[in-house]
Formats: sequence, C-alpha cells, structure tokens
Amino acid sequence: MSYKIGLDISGGDFAPGAIINGALLARSELKQDIVLIGSRLEIEEQLALNDQSADEFTIIDAPEKIEMAESPVSAVRRKKNSSIVVGINLLKSKQIDAFVSCGNTGAVVGAATLRLGLIPGVERPGIGLLLPTKTGVSLLIDVGANIDCKPMHLFQYGIMASVYYNLVLNKKNPSLGLLNIGEEASKGLGVIKDLHKLFTASPLNFIGNVEAKEIFSGKCDCIVCDGFIGNIALKVAEGSVEAMGRFLIETIKKGILGKIGLLLLLPNLKKFKRKMDYAEYGGAPLLGVDGVVIIGHGRSSALAVKNAIGVAVGELSRDLTETINRRVNEICQDSRIRQILTV
Amino acid sequence: MSYKIGLDISGGDFAPGAIINGALLARSELKQDIVLIGSRLEIEEQLALNDQSADEFTIIDAPEKIEMAESPVSAVRRKKNSSIVVGINLLKSKQIDAFVSCGNTGAVVGAATLRLGLIPGVERPGIGLLLPTKTGVSLLIDVGANIDCKPMHLFQYGIMASVYYNLVLNKKNPSLGLLNIGEEASKGLGVIKDLHKLFTASPLNFIGNVEAKEIFSGKCDCIVCDGFIGNIALKVAEGSVEAMGRFLIETIKKGILGKIGLLLLLPNLKKFKRKMDYAEYGGAPLLGVDGVVIIGHGRSSALAVKNAIGVAVGELSRDLTETINRRVNEICQDSRIRQILTV
Repeated sequence: MSYKIGLDISGGDFAPGAIINGALLARSELKQDIVLIGSRLEIEEQLALNDQSADEFTIIDAPEKIEMAESPVSAVRRKKNSSIVVGINLLKSKQIDAFVSCGNTGAVVGAATLRLGLIPGVERPGIGLLLPTKTGVSLLIDVGANIDCKPMHLFQYGIMASVYYNLVLNKKNPSLGLLNIGEEASKGLGVIKDLHKLFTASPLNFIGNVEAKEIFSGKCDCIVCDGFIGNIALKVAEGSVEAMGRFLIETIKKGILGKIGLLLLLPNLKKFKRKMDYAEYGGAPLLGVDGVVIIGHGRSSALAVKNAIGVAVGELSRDLTETINRRVNEICQDSRIRQILTV
Repeated sequence: MSYKIGLDISGGDFAPGAIINGALLARSELKQDIVLIGSRLEIEEQLALNDQSADEFTIIDAPEKIEMAESPVSAVRRKKNSSIVVGINLLKSKQIDAFVSCGNTGAVVGAATLRLGLIPGVERPGIGLLLPTKTGVSLLIDVGANIDCKPMHLFQYGIMASVYYNLVLNKKNPSLGLLNIGEEASKGLGVIKDLHKLFTASPLNFIGNVEAKEIFSGKCDCIVCDGFIGNIALKVAEGSVEAMGRFLIETIKKGILGKIGLLLLLPNLKKFKRKMDYAEYGGAPLLGVDGVVIIGHGRSSALAVKNAIGVAVGELSRDLTETINRRVNEICQDSRIRQILTV
C-alpha cells in the first residue's frame, strides 16, 4: 500500500541534497508517495540536479527554516511558514499520512505536541531510538523529548515502547527494562524506585533494572529512561564510537604489516563504519503524539532518510495509535496501578 | 619518594590474582611500599604462586569480603574485618598514605566518607574518572558517588576537578565544562541552569555547557555531571565500545582478503584493545574525602592495578587535599557566589 509521506527538506546537516536523494530512494525502493516540504526553489533546483521532473512530486512551499540551534518554542511560534510547522499542519489536516524531519528535534516535538495533540490518556510524548544489539534491535525511550519526567510519564513510555515493539517489530510480549545504575530494585533515584513498583504491578513483560551497557547487549527489547539521561546516553555512544574509530585507524596502520592489513581490510572497514553509524538505522518514532511523526538524525544521509521513511511506513501499516490509546488507558486505569500512584 | 600504599586484595573481578600481580608490578616499577590488605591466607598463597617471599611485604589480615553486589551501607557497618573497612581505618590512623581498591565502589565511598570524613568545606565526595581523548585526558566527575546532586555539590566538583587537573596533571587553569544536552545556557534541567550561573561567576576557567560526545573530544579538561548521569555515561561508553569491538571483528573477517588482513593486523588490534580499555588507565580518584582513596575498575588487570597505584602516588606527591580545602573555601565564600546561592 502506498502512503503520502511528508518529508521536511530543510532539516538536517546535509539538507537539502541528502534529503532529496533520500526521497528519490524511498520513491523507487519503497514505492511511497513522497510529499516534499520546504523552499520550492531549493526543491526544484535539487530535483533538476538529479534529472528529475518536479511534476512527478507533490511540492509544498514552506520557505522558512528553523535552524538546528534555534530555541524550539519561539521558532515554532514565529515561523508559521517553516517546513516543520507546515508539515505538522498537513498531518493534522490529514493531507499527509506521516511526517519525517531531520531538523530541530525540539521544534518537531513542540509543533507535533501543540498541533496534533497527544493520544488520549498519554501525558507526554517520548522519542524512541532503535539501536543495533548483539541479537537484534533495542528500543530506548525517551532520548530527549521530555527532560523532567514524572513516574507516570516513564511508565507510559514503557507501555508505548512495548506496543511499538510488538506491532512494528513483530515480537510478542517484548521484554522491558528500566535504565538504572545497578540491577537491584533498591538502587537509584526515588523516581526509579516508584517506577519499578509500577512496572512490576503491570501486565508488561518487565525484567527489572538494566545497566546502561545492556543497551547494546540485547538483554531486553525496550529500555525506559528519562529524556535527559537518554539524550546523554545517545551522545556518549556517538562520541565513544567516533573516538574508537579514530584510535582504531591510528593504531592499526602502524608498521608495514599494519599498512598492508589496513589496505586489505578497507572494503570491510567501510561496511563496518556504516554498520556502526546508527544514523543509518533510520528515524526515531515520536511516540504519544496523535499522528505518525519520525525524527531523523541531524547527520542523516540519503540512506538514513529512506530508512526513516521506512520507519514511518512500518508504523502506518499497523494500528499503532489506536493500540497505544487502548493499552495506555487499560493499564493506567487498572486498580493496582492507581493504588501505587496514589501512595 | 616512597609511600605506603594500602591495596585491597579482595576487591575486583580478577581478585586476588590480578591484584597481587599489580602489587608486584607497582613495587618493581614504581618503587612504592605496597601494604597488602585482605585474607592473609590468600595473600600468602598468591605470593607463593609468584615465587615471592611473604616477608618482603607488609600484610594486614582482613579476612572478610564485601561482595560487588552487596548493599554498601549495611556491608560497611557489619563487616568490620573486611579489606575495605580495615584499609580505610589504616588510612585514618595514618598507617598507610593512600588506599586503592577495585572492590564495591559504594562500600569504598561509604567507608571513606564515614571514617575519614570530608575535607572541611566540601559537602559531598565525587568520583573523578580519567578518560582518553583526541588530545590527552579528560576528567569526568562524578561517576557514581552521589546520585542526587544539589547545585553546591556539582559546583564543588568543578572546583575539585580543576584543582586535581592543575596539580596532578600539571595544567595551568584547566578548562571546565558542564555536561548538558545542548550548548545553550538556557537548555537542560533547573539544577544545571543554576550551576551555569555559579560557574560563570567563579574564577574557574568555565567554558559553558558541553554535550556528552565532547567527553572524548578533548574540548575541555574537566567535565561536571551528576553521579547518576556520570555512571550511565560510563556504562554506555563501556557498552558501546564492547559492541563496536564485536561488530568490528565480525565485519572485517569476512572474505579471504578480510581474513588475511585480520591476521596481519592482529598485533595492532591487540594494542588497540588495550588502548580502548579505560580500565587500564588506572583508578578513579575519590575527591573530597580527607585522604587519598583511589577506586579501580572492577575488571582491573594487573596493569590497571599498577596504574591505579600510580594515580595514588601522583596525588600524594602534590598537596591536593590542602589545595582543595583552600580553593573550595575561597570560592564558595566569595560574595558573588553566596549571592547566587541565596536567590
């Protein structure tokens, strides 16, 4: 089935070139109808560069740009003709089925929350990040939508992540862990101890606290944390992988054997670099808002943009929003959960 | 100059073997007088295995062990004859000059805080971690001593880290950053905004907020964060480097060229593995307690133990405790700082 996927052309470090290339890839490989949102002039220029006729795309002119460093709240309020605000409005009015942006994350979260609203019963949106593990993929939520989380917000992240993993990644009863500094239930901040009780009383497949190194081990499918901590975790992972890559090349090319070995390994090392670049894994779903919104990494390449569009399609072909709505309300209104919350 | 360095023989994943080997290395390479603290039976056994006479060491019998997973507070209270409690008591009574342990971190922090007390004026101890960067070394504080930090605790971490970097790592006016989810002063949690004001008003070389990926970039010398976040950051770095190492080997050995290349690179890859293993960089100084206490990584090898002892010696040969005392009191009693704190 083909959907109308709105794509923000102005957001991302390599915009608009990489974004347009991603749109072309997605159109040919995923057979989706991509709606290009951004400066019409730039879009037409980029399409011409790729020998593509502008007539074959729906183009929505949104000449304003929200820069990466801009304050999200005021940017969303002021720049009504920005690609992010226009895109979210198109989603609200159902002229597109999903919106994908590699732009200012705070602005996407802010515009989506304000204009689309939240799924009834959900208290805060959360950004879920899919990360490669030893055995498959783990879903870490939240990585930066909500930096001051109450237990209920984190509890609902666990529910939403479990629904997502079940429906979109096709795993029955996915396991859920709580990010903490130790595995014992007694460890960590007060909010985490409360949350431990909530998850234990819930019907979710809660396996308890997990340490941060388990994010990459595949020990559990979904991992819940505060957006501040999740964002730090994400950036540490990026930084350490970058540093490791640099040290790796410096160290292995030493000596004549090292230089020959490096030469022989170059094709495989390039593959490895792509494998480690989690930007390539596509976009991060913004869960909890009433519509399909995917946030791509700022460094997204054309392949990453195509993958982010793929994530949107994955959500659209399942009734994610309805299921989140039903599960959040079922679980949060359960008498045992309500009892813990009122203590 | 030779110091008496107390070494906890019972703590660490590879104790007592790796710890004793580390002591032997430290004695021969660093020319220090190592006091072995732990089960006398085990120590004598290990020394015999290494063809060493027990007569050449001071051995302090401390037969009880605090396990890695034990609750620190109750373990410190109950196990008076544990290597950690005995070692800290020896330091308190000045029978040793410094104490090094790769055991239960919480127990070391707890015993040191209770028995040694804090440097006058310091409100909380913090664990500083030395990490390799592009240009040298960065000092991240706190990585797990204090998981519920008030602005004053974090402010003092910045002062203590700056003093440490200046004295022990010999850098005048080291730069200091505040770990946050963005560089703008307006970003992040309330406690971080308060802290930004305090550092800006202080005489420290404060460069503002830094993102987590800068931990490895060498952008600044000292980085301050809450112990919960610092511990998560540490474990994420460990986990991502581990995962990356695994992916690396899987990917590069593909194909016949890959297999030959890998063979040629093996010696360099082994060097690389050691370089990335931050456990090898030695121990983490516990700053703020009234005495030199170094916490080694649980996975410490003999080399790491020797390096941790080296970190202790580095501290002892400078008047770190006195300088921390003087700087903390000078800066915290400054009228501009006091004014910000009372708002």
